Amino acid sequence: MEWFIMMTFISGGVRSGKSRFAEQLAEQDAQARGGPLFYLATAATPQEPEMQARIRWHQQDRGTAWITLEEPVALNAILPRLQPNSTLLLDCLTLWSSQVMFASDLSLEEAIKQLSAFIQALADQHIHLIVVSNDINECLPPTECKLLNYVNFLQSLHQCLTAQADQAIQMLSGCAYYWKGG
Amino acid sequence: MEWFIMMTFISGGVRSGKSRFAEQLAEQDAQARGGPLFYLATAATPQEPEMQARIRWHQQDRGTAWITLEEPVALNAILPRLQPNSTLLLDCLTLWSSQVMFASDLSLEEAIKQLSAFIQALADQHIHLIVVSNDINECLPPTECKLLNYVNFLQSLHQCLTAQADQAIQMLSGCAYYWKGG
Amino acid sequence: MEWFIMMTFISGGVRSGKSRFAEQLAEQDAQARGGPLFYLATAATPQEPEMQARIRWHQQDRGTAWITLEEPVALNAILPRLQPNSTLLLDCLTLWSSQVMFASDLSLEEAIKQLSAFIQALADQHIHLIVVSNDINECLPPTECKLLNYVNFLQSLHQCLTAQADQAIQMLSGCAYYWKGG
Repeated sequence: MEWFIMMTFISGGVRSGKSRFAEQLAEQDAQARGGPLFYLATAATPQEPEMQARIRWHQQDRGTAWITLEEPVALNAILPRLQPNSTLLLDCLTLWSSQVMFASDLSLEEAIKQLSAFIQALADQHIHLIVVSNDINECLPPTECKLLNYVNFLQSLHQCLTAQADQAIQMLSGCAYYWKGG
Repeated sequence: MEWFIMMTFISGGVRSGKSRFAEQLAEQDAQARGGPLFYLATAATPQEPEMQARIRWHQQDRGTAWITLEEPVALNAILPRLQPNSTLLLDCLTLWSSQVMFASDLSLEEAIKQLSAFIQALADQHIHLIVVSNDINECLPPTECKLLNYVNFLQSLHQCLTAQADQAIQMLSGCAYYWKGG
Repeated sequence: MEWFIMMTFISGGVRSGKSRFAEQLAEQDAQARGGPLFYLATAATPQEPEMQARIRWHQQDRGTAWITLEEPVALNAILPRLQPNSTLLLDCLTLWSSQVMFASDLSLEEAIKQLSAFIQALADQHIHLIVVSNDINECLPPTECKLLNYVNFLQSLHQCLTAQADQAIQMLSGCAYYWKGG
């Protein structure tokens, strides 16, 4: 029996090539396993036509190999729709975390608990989870308290994911640097 | 016949030591080739006396080995002033890209096209191009649409340059890390 | 006689795991030397009860092995309270630099001079200095002049420290990357 990587965490700044790299990684992984390829979109359906168009464009661009699931908050809700030994790309954690923090008012401890339970449930089914997120902390901390809390919230989740990940990757201008498991 | 590196891309945050490192690299390169050393300043002449003084100080600090050219937008316009087998430092792309995006209203596609044509024209003449730019994407995305577009614009150019570069380097506190071609 | 590292510089973004990593490093270092372990808190006592609580929590969390000193500006003032062959963690430079720049109105040259004299005085006593600071420069430069000056000020101090450091480390999501002396 082969050994497969169970969790990969990919972070980087805006337009650093994170999503493209993650999609290629997921496609290669699914091909190696011979299993299905799931895409978990965390965006609540946006109001802006521009954003809707960008989402449609991304979906078409990914091609027919992908099964797209949508869930803005309750990650566990998608578990029944997955299959064992598959590959799941969650893009992106940044959006999910802003939604659980601002709309669902989850505490950091609760968010970490939910995320960890989700990771464990996937690992139990030999599903490779690939998580994409944005680094937003290499700057002057925002003066607005709500935004500073969000930076702290998201970056604490990053630490939690990196600790649990088999691979942790940072993207810079389309280049991948392996912080863990390279 | 020797092989020379044709394009080097150096990025980093504000005061990360990018320019100093790039200047040393360019000087070493010109010495190894025995060719002239050009500096392409992309700043439109600034209004502020402080900025004017800083530019003059930088120019004097670089010393007499350098031939300084100034061109805020039309990169190709400087081609007739260069010589084959020379070294050209473009400092910095951040400024150029803000000028072509905001003042000249160029699309990303058009900017990539112009930049790639410039790179090709230099490679044809065996001119080593060293490009310096700022990483501005490891933070909360700006809420103002125009600024967000600019971050996307610049970081997409970074990806384009990194893909074409023989060497891609990120600076952190005066230390160079080679993402590509180290 | 053994050789000990004399200065370590650790930077990273908000919630990147800098402080925890620095504390572990300091504890290991003190254990290896058999010397005392000092913590230099640079925070002027904050107004906000939340911040006061966070400081108390951190102090308790560090445990009884640590001797905590407090000094927001005049680093040299703590020298008489230290002992040779000890370990000193300064957390963090970001706060110190904002205080010397905004409250004490020190120039960058003067700040570098004070910091370098402090480092030298510690090295003379075989005290290992570990400095923690925030990277705040991978973003659009702030438009407000005072803030931009601060980014320049702090990042210039980072370059100064990195140049003098035996080890320079950047933290990303709890992972340490050695830029120098790894």
